Amino acid sequence: MAKSVRYHYPEMKRFLEDAFQKFGFSLKESEEITDVLLLSDLYGISSHGLQRLVRYHKCIKNGMIKVGAKPELVFETPVSAVIDAHDGMGQLVSIDAMKLAIEKAKKTGIAMVSVRNSNHYGIAGYYAKMACDEGLIGMSVTNTTALMVPTFGKKAMLGSNPIAVSMPADPYPFFFDSSTTVVTRGKLEMYNKMEKPMPIGWAVDENGIATESAPRVLRNIDDKAGGGILPLGGHLEMLGSHKGYGYAMLCEIFSSIVSLGKTSNHTYEKGKCEVCHGFAAIDPNIFGNAEEIKAYFSNFLKELREAPKADGQERIYTHGEKEVEAYKDRMENGWDVNINTVVEMKNLCDDLGFDYKEYLGDVDFSDASKNMYEQRIGGIK
Amino acid sequence: MAKSVRYHYPEMKRFLEDAFQKFGFSLKESEEITDVLLLSDLYGISSHGLQRLVRYHKCIKNGMIKVGAKPELVFETPVSAVIDAHDGMGQLVSIDAMKLAIEKAKKTGIAMVSVRNSNHYGIAGYYAKMACDEGLIGMSVTNTTALMVPTFGKKAMLGSNPIAVSMPADPYPFFFDSSTTVVTRGKLEMYNKMEKPMPIGWAVDENGIATESAPRVLRNIDDKAGGGILPLGGHLEMLGSHKGYGYAMLCEIFSSIVSLGKTSNHTYEKGKCEVCHGFAAIDPNIFGNAEEIKAYFSNFLKELREAPKADGQERIYTHGEKEVEAYKDRMENGWDVNINTVVEMKNLCDDLGFDYKEYLGDVDFSDASKNMYEQRIGGIK
Repeated sequence: MAKSVRYHYPEMKRFLEDAFQKFGFSLKESEEITDVLLLSDLYGISSHGLQRLVRYHKCIKNGMIKVGAKPELVFETPVSAVIDAHDGMGQLVSIDAMKLAIEKAKKTGIAMVSVRNSNHYGIAGYYAKMACDEGLIGMSVTNTTALMVPTFGKKAMLGSNPIAVSMPADPYPFFFDSSTTVVTRGKLEMYNKMEKPMPIGWAVDENGIATESAPRVLRNIDDKAGGGILPLGGHLEMLGSHKGYGYAMLCEIFSSIVSLGKTSNHTYEKGKCEVCHGFAAIDPNIFGNAEEIKAYFSNFLKELREAPKADGQERIYTHGEKEVEAYKDRMENGWDVNINTVVEMKNLCDDLGFDYKEYLGDVDFSDASKNMYEQRIGGIK
Repeated sequence: MAKSVRYHYPEMKRFLEDAFQKFGFSLKESEEITDVLLLSDLYGISSHGLQRLVRYHKCIKNGMIKVGAKPELVFETPVSAVIDAHDGMGQLVSIDAMKLAIEKAKKTGIAMVSVRNSNHYGIAGYYAKMACDEGLIGMSVTNTTALMVPTFGKKAMLGSNPIAVSMPADPYPFFFDSSTTVVTRGKLEMYNKMEKPMPIGWAVDENGIATESAPRVLRNIDDKAGGGILPLGGHLEMLGSHKGYGYAMLCEIFSSIVSLGKTSNHTYEKGKCEVCHGFAAIDPNIFGNAEEIKAYFSNFLKELREAPKADGQERIYTHGEKEVEAYKDRMENGWDVNINTVVEMKNLCDDLGFDYKEYLGDVDFSDASKNMYEQRIGGIK
């Protein structure tokens, strides 16, 4: 009995591109959205790929994501811009925003672009990677639905607020993409689907007490009922809770604050998402010779990988190494998708009038969960 | 029997300025160094103020810090610069570097300056605050002696690598200054002086095993004998160890990597310190109206402070609040300095030929520790 189904890149690419076109996006737009979502699966970040399709499905269906939205450039200087996404698909405005940052950075050396009134944009690292692919240092941050409880608080006020940075290096680029919470909401969603207890230290319930229940925390976040995920550093100042909280603030500054958009605690109100993003691109040539800097950085990464290992550990990873290895493996061999995610994909097919077997094959759904907490997004069932 | 002695700002200012002048720094230079060190004490960051004087004392005496060094501008664009500190005092080159970043950012909107071959620069936040005082967003990072063990490693390869960000807000600016380790080396130095066991979760010994012994970890760091302080997120990936490690990498990128300076694992070799710093200044006007952004940010900070408190907690702090309160209190009432730090201050007086009683008063040293681990800096006793 299969608890997961193995899929391959070409079939999932066709499925997603067809689905997003059916929603009304152009072929080019559908390709862009698909590329962001599947890079996540290919990089082994299963929480943010197919697993998140249900979120886009629900939000497009209910109008939280506006298919025909035209992002508006509301402020611009040679080194910066602010874009209003007007509730469009987060991936589309974000690709354009990072392209603009890259274009500006190639002229001026550094550029920052902030986006307001957007929707979930997938993995933060996708946009940092865009700059890296052009030989620049790329940075990307976003706020999200409020789910992080600030140090000494019991109500979620900040998002998972990831920070992503990518920089050219050999044999693979540095790629760091990390929420400022202990874990992302996506990890809780995975535990909800796997119906497994979470490790203690990830989240607190509505009373501010440590909990192992992913569905309980997800429900509380959806209901804005209190509790949430802990900042990196955990509960108390002793292990640095105020630090994770501080890094989350940096994300707010460069996404919601400078764009005058919604801070995490005001997103997902009145049927709108309105999260905000921030992008930066930096040309290493403003510090000297980019090739020399790249070689120097590559050597440092090598030193880290070759440093003495802790007892029982075989490898020290540098950031991006696991992703490159996962990409190679998954492109070649495909990857396993949780059966409950496949149910969500089938529901999407049904809604769009697709014959699911054409895209997903002949799936045995007898293992699908009857008890999993079905998430709502901004109160949308 | 006093375990600490209370001192006040004017007397400590006079002491430090006289001491640094006696070392050969000009009055202006001595005032600058003193201002960085005492702001730390006034902000309640006791680990980085008078407590650290012994470090500067030893390093100047032994030539690791070169008193007459002339920093050199080795690369420059309208938005950036790289400075070689030529082993000068970290505070002096850093103040100049941030002034340059501010000057450039006022013209171009954003600027970054990287410094190599420097010495310890005090609290990272001092330089971020410099930009904030000018209405800009200020950022400051540094690498340090290797003391952070990367995830799955057992040898310290990265520094405590703090990230500091400051941004204008009312009634007080946002001021975030935080190492990317669970705690800084300075905290271990304080526990060493207090002769208290550290909380488990801060550091590992030379075998990679959790330890409560601050002197043991400090000795191992000085001897490069293995072990060290854990990244924010602790030991394992489960609670985000790879995240603290990743943030530390960002510090290396903008300090040692882009300047082609020494990465943390190569600092403090052959009697030289050679740490590197990175500074950035961003004018909020590149995103719209700076005053409007400041007001919007201030309101968000207020919402955070007023959010529901966890059971047993009275306040949620925003970053910089504690510092402003400590500053007010300590300027008015002075602050307590650990007796073992006062011993270090007396030793400095003795070395400089000062009558210590003139600066430190009539101190009862009977409580001073006989057992405290006396730190070496880069092998210098």
